[in-house]
Amino acid sequence: MERKIYLSNTSLSKAKEIFLNAALKKEPGVEEIPVFDAAGRVTAEPVFARISSPHYHAAAMDGVAVKSSDTFGATATTPLRLRLEENAFYIDTGGLMPPGCDAVIMIEDVFFPEKDKPRVIEIREPAAPWQHVRSIGEDIVATEMILPSYHWLRPFDLGALLNGGIFKLNVLKEPLVSLIPTGSELIEPPADPLPGQIIESNSYVFSAAVRGWGARVKRFPIIKDDPAQLENALREASKESDLILISAGSSAGRKDYTVKILDKLGEVLIHGVAIRPGKPVILAVIGSTPVVGLPGYPVAAYVALELFVKPFLYYWQKQTPPDKPFLEAYSSRRVLSSLKEEEFLRLKVGKVEDKFVATPLSRGSGVSMSLVRADGVTTIPQNKEGIEPGEGIQVELWRSRDEIENTIVCLGSHDLSLDILSDHLKKSHGYTLSSAHVGSMGGIMALKRGETHLAGIHLLDEESGVYNISYLERYLPEMELVLVHLAQRELGLMLEEKNKARISSLEDLAGDNIVFVNRQKGAGTRLYLDYMLKKKGINPADITGYGREEYDHLSVAAAVKAGGADTGLGIRAAAEALGLEFIPLTRESYELAVPASFYNTPKCRALLEVIGSDAFRNAVEKMGGYDLTRSGEIVWRSHPDKS
Amino acid sequence: MERKIYLSNTSLSKAKEIFLNAALKKEPGVEEIPVFDAAGRVTAEPVFARISSPHYHAAAMDGVAVKSSDTFGATATTPLRLRLEENAFYIDTGGLMPPGCDAVIMIEDVFFPEKDKPRVIEIREPAAPWQHVRSIGEDIVATEMILPSYHWLRPFDLGALLNGGIFKLNVLKEPLVSLIPTGSELIEPPADPLPGQIIESNSYVFSAAVRGWGARVKRFPIIKDDPAQLENALREASKESDLILISAGSSAGRKDYTVKILDKLGEVLIHGVAIRPGKPVILAVIGSTPVVGLPGYPVAAYVALELFVKPFLYYWQKQTPPDKPFLEAYSSRRVLSSLKEEEFLRLKVGKVEDKFVATPLSRGSGVSMSLVRADGVTTIPQNKEGIEPGEGIQVELWRSRDEIENTIVCLGSHDLSLDILSDHLKKSHGYTLSSAHVGSMGGIMALKRGETHLAGIHLLDEESGVYNISYLERYLPEMELVLVHLAQRELGLMLEEKNKARISSLEDLAGDNIVFVNRQKGAGTRLYLDYMLKKKGINPADITGYGREEYDHLSVAAAVKAGGADTGLGIRAAAEALGLEFIPLTRESYELAVPASFYNTPKCRALLEVIGSDAFRNAVEKMGGYDLTRSGEIVWRSHPDKS
Repeated sequence: MERKIYLSNTSLSKAKEIFLNAALKKEPGVEEIPVFDAAGRVTAEPVFARISSPHYHAAAMDGVAVKSSDTFGATATTPLRLRLEENAFYIDTGGLMPPGCDAVIMIEDVFFPEKDKPRVIEIREPAAPWQHVRSIGEDIVATEMILPSYHWLRPFDLGALLNGGIFKLNVLKEPLVSLIPTGSELIEPPADPLPGQIIESNSYVFSAAVRGWGARVKRFPIIKDDPAQLENALREASKESDLILISAGSSAGRKDYTVKILDKLGEVLIHGVAIRPGKPVILAVIGSTPVVGLPGYPVAAYVALELFVKPFLYYWQKQTPPDKPFLEAYSSRRVLSSLKEEEFLRLKVGKVEDKFVATPLSRGSGVSMSLVRADGVTTIPQNKEGIEPGEGIQVELWRSRDEIENTIVCLGSHDLSLDILSDHLKKSHGYTLSSAHVGSMGGIMALKRGETHLAGIHLLDEESGVYNISYLERYLPEMELVLVHLAQRELGLMLEEKNKARISSLEDLAGDNIVFVNRQKGAGTRLYLDYMLKKKGINPADITGYGREEYDHLSVAAAVKAGGADTGLGIRAAAEALGLEFIPLTRESYELAVPASFYNTPKCRALLEVIGSDAFRNAVEKMGGYDLTRSGEIVWRSHPDKS
Repeated sequence: MERKIYLSNTSLSKAKEIFLNAALKKEPGVEEIPVFDAAGRVTAEPVFARISSPHYHAAAMDGVAVKSSDTFGATATTPLRLRLEENAFYIDTGGLMPPGCDAVIMIEDVFFPEKDKPRVIEIREPAAPWQHVRSIGEDIVATEMILPSYHWLRPFDLGALLNGGIFKLNVLKEPLVSLIPTGSELIEPPADPLPGQIIESNSYVFSAAVRGWGARVKRFPIIKDDPAQLENALREASKESDLILISAGSSAGRKDYTVKILDKLGEVLIHGVAIRPGKPVILAVIGSTPVVGLPGYPVAAYVALELFVKPFLYYWQKQTPPDKPFLEAYSSRRVLSSLKEEEFLRLKVGKVEDKFVATPLSRGSGVSMSLVRADGVTTIPQNKEGIEPGEGIQVELWRSRDEIENTIVCLGSHDLSLDILSDHLKKSHGYTLSSAHVGSMGGIMALKRGETHLAGIHLLDEESGVYNISYLERYLPEMELVLVHLAQRELGLMLEEKNKARISSLEDLAGDNIVFVNRQKGAGTRLYLDYMLKKKGINPADITGYGREEYDHLSVAAAVKAGGADTGLGIRAAAEALGLEFIPLTRESYELAVPASFYNTPKCRALLEVIGSDAFRNAVEKMGGYDLTRSGEIVWRSHPDKS
């Protein structure tokens, strides 16, 4: 068995240079299209006006057209009379100047001295020659160049072309991008995948992206893991395409014959670029047709698409890629990054007090939701070890600054009601609620560092049995805070439907054949578990799977549902969402810790209004295990020592 | 005859507030569409995952799947052997983990100790549980909210939806915008307009613009100046539209019944906004359908479209209008602006030395080419009297910063060869040549103020008979300059085809029945004329039309062509372009004055390469009246006194 395991680690700038040089050798085709359809297209040659605009001397105002020499001497004290249809003529803006007339008097300056003689007018100042007249060619002169070659047509360019008597023009043909999805595990949507099957989604992402960059798309059906099939598809695609994208097949594994076929049909320029994610990208040419082999993981594929395909399509159409909007933000935490690669890190960004705070999202290249949730992306250069907490970073924004400023940041514990809160808030007030799951203690620390507007917490005080207050007093003694009740929720053991393991209480977790799945350190649910284990004298080391950590209730539920674990601790709503059994252990208070500085803002008022609404309460209670009777109540206010 | 002459002068912010409040009362409709078509659309409701992604435990790497407990104890010195198909299984990225396996060992870490036993593998470190395994729901957990309501769908959002098993979704219906062009003078393109007829172009600009902002378009045929027809069209449009745009019919002239009809069918909110251009805009509602009456002049119409229609369409779709890119630039000249209005001024922008210099374009609201040529726009607030030369201004960029930086600015005299130079330069080197016609002396002054990379000039020294050099010595004594020859061109009198006025020389200009059209002060052609008149003892006061100034050769030719003047002075190429007779008077040297600091840049080298190319020479000489034998020659270098 032959294996090609190692990829090169070419720097991004070098890889781009090599690829674009080789890829941009072919000239785009040209086609004639009507001006009406030309917005967004690119001129293939200069366009010269066929007629002038205006193409006759035209009135520039509504009023009367006159011969200027007829009006000399008119003043307020010695007004002058003219007769309509004889030496003065009503004219509208754009109207043809009558023969002999060389000036227009605005209708506001025309007076009617005699009520019974509507054709007699009076003027009180003279008209200068060519006053209020648009002379021929004022806008465009026939034969003038309206647009140069390679001009990207905007809506008003169409207007100028039509004004110059141009109704058709030669434009560059839109580049044709062929998409070839590969992999025996892929199935065409719509479909319900069986275990081992994956819905093919990348080609649809690529398709939408390259269309946005001006391309036409031809999507091939999925190519199974069969070198001959892929070779045929590539031969066919290379006949007519301006760019070929192969989806997946670019890693260095067992079935990686993609590189070999490309090497046979053309030339592999680069296999492996020092970027993360996106490292295994293949850059090749078949004849004069460039080929990009994109990784199968969605985030890696999208990063490579932005870095190689987007500039290629712009340059191919003789355009400069558009400017990216950047924002200076402060990193909320430390991020270590490899010195081997340039890293593209997805981030959530929120404006807390007066600064923009960026919180890194999942770095997994398989987590497509990290693209969906991202407000932007930052680049960690290859020679940089990472980002320090509080360090200023440049964020390429994926949402508008206004949207970022209208976002409420909620770091802390995960609760399903936050998604519903977010949706209701967006619909009623237009604000976005951006929540990231860092656990209750993570939320408190984020408040301390000024990185979040508020924190969702559920922390049981072991001694008093009261939730949250004692933690805020201990960890945020100097902060003026308001604690708002959101929900009471049932916490318990989630079990697969038939409960084969016959679990009935926490004591069973230490059983020999029981596999548990845990929450991460700092999560309120984890603290509750550890408290109960201590109380019951159970040694965590005796629980199989105690070390396996998931970051939210649904992920724990999913692990149980899939049989990877027999049980895990979570809220009833998560269990019900996935059809699991549930053994309630306690009712806990999920509450929002809100700094007073944020509490008095319109954003927070909007949030509290939604929390107190029946629509929100009903929607949350419908999920099961929730009691929102007290939602919106102020549970506690801090009285910090301000000395 | 009833006349409504006065418009209100409502401030822009007030007008926007009133309009948007009244216009956004209707809720958008909802429709179900396939995910494949959803890019650029907006979710109507939250979308929840139907399946998890991955929906089974999947290998995250290519390698072998193992049970982690089988691998404990393996080290580099005490390697451990496994058997393929027994307790180790080849697996590809994304593959289904075999039953009992909970870890993947990367293929790079798998060794084959015995050549003849390909199924025996060796590992040199243990596999941790769940190593290189993507557990169920790592990306998306079934029932999780993938997208909230009112989310604008980007390409990668489609990927996440497909991964979550979503193939159709409810989105907001695209707003339907009805366009009603009005005016008896308008004709439908394509057509050759007769005098008094205007090609209808605005509705095509509006159509392309609102499509870009997410709308569908229904264009009505042109409505002649007939109140009943307009009323019918409005009644019909208001039944189904989410927005109605009336093109023209918004000024306060004789035929302005638009406001009256809107008042009858609905409510006129505002007629007249304190903006320039765009003042006569009408903002109204018919029932819950907003109506915008846009001015007929293309620039006024476009400004009003951006200010009222664009935000409406974004808010209607529950989105924030995108951020506008701004650039700080320095104004190259004084601009006086009325205190009555907020002015939107189109500008050319170039980077000269290290600063961005902005030069205002024509402020005429009928000059559609001022939109085409603009690199951006700046706002002069209502309470500001204008802009001082050298004042820093915020420019909203219409082209990318890269494009601006790749632009060569050439202020100075007008020559038709500059358009050809621009086109060849763009095609061969990707640089843009941006020329503005300010006359030869204007070009020299722009060099002095550091506002242009180079200046095109043709200035005859009356004493020496030599072009250009003495002017540079006199006006730019301290500047290190290179003077590059571009072309010799014939200058002479342009005459209408039949030369009815029987003009044969400059002496005829003072004739009784001769109407002349002049060039602006500071133009080389004007200086030549004044020099010759003085030499011949002709008094300019005796020349009819001496005071009518045009800004370039083509405009003078157009004035003659149209019969507005009998003759004017210009270059042969302009006369030939419009089929005019031409009486040559002199041959002049059109040359480029280039500061040494720019001469040694890649941009200038590219420019000189094009100037010296046969393709460029041939294209210019084809226009007639040009001799490019010496094009590209360095005519002179200054030796400034650097003391």
